[in-house]
Amino acid sequence: MGRLVMKFGGTSVADIARIEAAAEKVVAEIARGHQVAVVVSAMAGVTNSLIGYCRDVSPLHDAREYDAVVSSGENVTSGLMALALQKRGVQARSWQGWQVPIKCTDMHGKARIVTIDATAMAERLDSGEVAVLAGFQGVTSRNRITTLGRGGSDTTAVALAAALGADRCDIYTDVSGVFTTDPRIVPQARKLDRISYEEMLEMASLGAKVLQTRSVEMAMKQNVPVQVLSSMEDPIGSTFPGTLVTKEEDILEQEIVNGITYSKDEAKITLRGVPDVPGVAARIFGPLADAAINVDMIVQNISDDRKTTDITFTVTATDLHRALEALRKCEDLKDTKIIADEDVVKVSIVGIGMRSHAGVASTMFRALSEKGINIEVISTSEIKISVLLLKEYTELAVRTLHIAYGLEKKAEIA
Amino acid sequence: MGRLVMKFGGTSVADIARIEAAAEKVVAEIARGHQVAVVVSAMAGVTNSLIGYCRDVSPLHDAREYDAVVSSGENVTSGLMALALQKRGVQARSWQGWQVPIKCTDMHGKARIVTIDATAMAERLDSGEVAVLAGFQGVTSRNRITTLGRGGSDTTAVALAAALGADRCDIYTDVSGVFTTDPRIVPQARKLDRISYEEMLEMASLGAKVLQTRSVEMAMKQNVPVQVLSSMEDPIGSTFPGTLVTKEEDILEQEIVNGITYSKDEAKITLRGVPDVPGVAARIFGPLADAAINVDMIVQNISDDRKTTDITFTVTATDLHRALEALRKCEDLKDTKIIADEDVVKVSIVGIGMRSHAGVASTMFRALSEKGINIEVISTSEIKISVLLLKEYTELAVRTLHIAYGLEKKAEIA
Repeated sequence: MGRLVMKFGGTSVADIARIEAAAEKVVAEIARGHQVAVVVSAMAGVTNSLIGYCRDVSPLHDAREYDAVVSSGENVTSGLMALALQKRGVQARSWQGWQVPIKCTDMHGKARIVTIDATAMAERLDSGEVAVLAGFQGVTSRNRITTLGRGGSDTTAVALAAALGADRCDIYTDVSGVFTTDPRIVPQARKLDRISYEEMLEMASLGAKVLQTRSVEMAMKQNVPVQVLSSMEDPIGSTFPGTLVTKEEDILEQEIVNGITYSKDEAKITLRGVPDVPGVAARIFGPLADAAINVDMIVQNISDDRKTTDITFTVTATDLHRALEALRKCEDLKDTKIIADEDVVKVSIVGIGMRSHAGVASTMFRALSEKGINIEVISTSEIKISVLLLKEYTELAVRTLHIAYGLEKKAEIA
Repeated sequence: MGRLVMKFGGTSVADIARIEAAAEKVVAEIARGHQVAVVVSAMAGVTNSLIGYCRDVSPLHDAREYDAVVSSGENVTSGLMALALQKRGVQARSWQGWQVPIKCTDMHGKARIVTIDATAMAERLDSGEVAVLAGFQGVTSRNRITTLGRGGSDTTAVALAAALGADRCDIYTDVSGVFTTDPRIVPQARKLDRISYEEMLEMASLGAKVLQTRSVEMAMKQNVPVQVLSSMEDPIGSTFPGTLVTKEEDILEQEIVNGITYSKDEAKITLRGVPDVPGVAARIFGPLADAAINVDMIVQNISDDRKTTDITFTVTATDLHRALEALRKCEDLKDTKIIADEDVVKVSIVGIGMRSHAGVASTMFRALSEKGINIEVISTSEIKISVLLLKEYTELAVRTLHIAYGLEKKAEIA
């Protein structure tokens, strides 16, 4: 008995049959005595076609109008889900972002949730009604509709769970949980039963697409246990059939490395012959920050003549064009050679246990070197090590590291 | 110089190209110095597919959820139209019903507009911004979304024109105006330059589908001049290229008959041998009214035995099944034979001049009789005469009456 938020992504509500199947899962949780709030995405493909319309009309569109258009897909699904629940004898109603209301910043297209006043919804839950909230959307202080960016429904779900004081937020998707790595590359990839917020955060931002990074940040901050599970499988039988993302303290056995991720949306920029004077880095990276371009890995080398320096860093491939434009306008770089390379991949290992174990990095470097894979850039944090490689080594590197850290083992025992 | 509401129906915003063409028409009106508020329908086909989703989930759906789903089509078009205008250098923003707000009754699926607070929108118009309102929708006092029923965007447009004190409401559609009759049946049908509210109201409710009946009622009540015109043609050149629906006093030359309409969505019910006692009619029609079934033409005959009576009346074919159900439950009719007939059509002549001219009806009856067409039921009002005929005579009757009243003449002279 408790409150549960259940979120269904686009593939889990792709058509009427899938919406009906999702409704059955809600009914099952009600039968277990839970109060349920459901968060839905748009039916798979709908958001993309709405985005297509906006682009067709105007490539440089007003983000406020883009939001008004693109948010409508979730409105449709929330109404249909409410109907599917009613058909099953469940009291239910749909909620749109403005009806709750979910107040957001006015950064249209990628707004952040400021507050959710869930009082009215909570009353309805207490009266036995299921709330079905349109994900991905909210309103600004001026009552304009805004969206939270791609994958924003995960964030809606976690924020709603926090606002409602829910016991758990279940994210239904098309995979059965969080895996040690991409099973399409490594068939031996193992589903994790539990993973800490910190690890999930690294994995999400490093390219594991199962949860939106911001939703994990919010879950960690608000201390909402999140379960990732498949809407295609029958959840009955096990308490947590998916992967539970939770506090570090709730995970008894901490692995040194829990996951291998890769991201192909990377581009490397090398600045050769940058004047080696104080403050030059700020003058280079300032314009990139102004253009809202995130710089990820950074390496600086002193060059042979000791008067100039070489700087290498990465941005997402999507931002590359804009990054180069910003750099070419930079007064300090007028004598600098700017080299861009999109033929790279970032491969990372993630694990909380890394903090208390030595030799984790050397295992990585040795394993890659034994396969003849050259590392171009390295960056590390407390619980992850990332390396930049030539793109063609992606699969080989991921498989090699999965074996090197023995990630398939547990599955063999079970 | 003045305020104009321009409404574009589903075929006028059917795809991006049509939305762009509609935007051009708005730009042309701005160039003439008008302040413009645009009202849009959903892209053609979208509303039907959303209704299909609702039916697929649940044939007996909650009308509140139906409204939440079905209203989303207009949200998409309003955003896209705002973008199309912005691309043309016009300041524009989309408005959804709740943002205005457009307050409606809570009769979901067929709500009526109660109030429109157009203060905020009017301020924006004054500042030179075009308002693009999603038609067909509003909110109830409890902030649930509601829709106005099929064709409701016409009503939205007229109501907005009234709220904004607009000089005119232009309804862009796929025909170039209001015709003397259906041009698919009578190629000589002539476009009317002007028509009175009263006539338009009769024609709309008698089956001419160019404007929703309620929108005409509202235009008449609020004294909003409405122009019906085609979005497919170039309006430049003429002041009123379409048909202006306006006050009787503004129409100089009043025709005796202005239009011939027909409606095939009719069913005739005959009750044979109804006990002829006082109050029986009320006891028969009461249950139909309770079931929200509109009874149209009614004829009562005394039967041969003078103890019972025969009653014939019409309902829409759509309501026939429900009407028969209600009648069969009626205690007073347990010995009465109930005969239903869907093979009928209602053909009507409409004209304000009828009020001051004798012989209009006899011209109609003679013309039909000369073609061997039998009249089953007759009903009249001040400005219209309707007859119920066998359905197979539809085209013949319409053509015959169009000639009998000389409706093609003006076109021949011009």
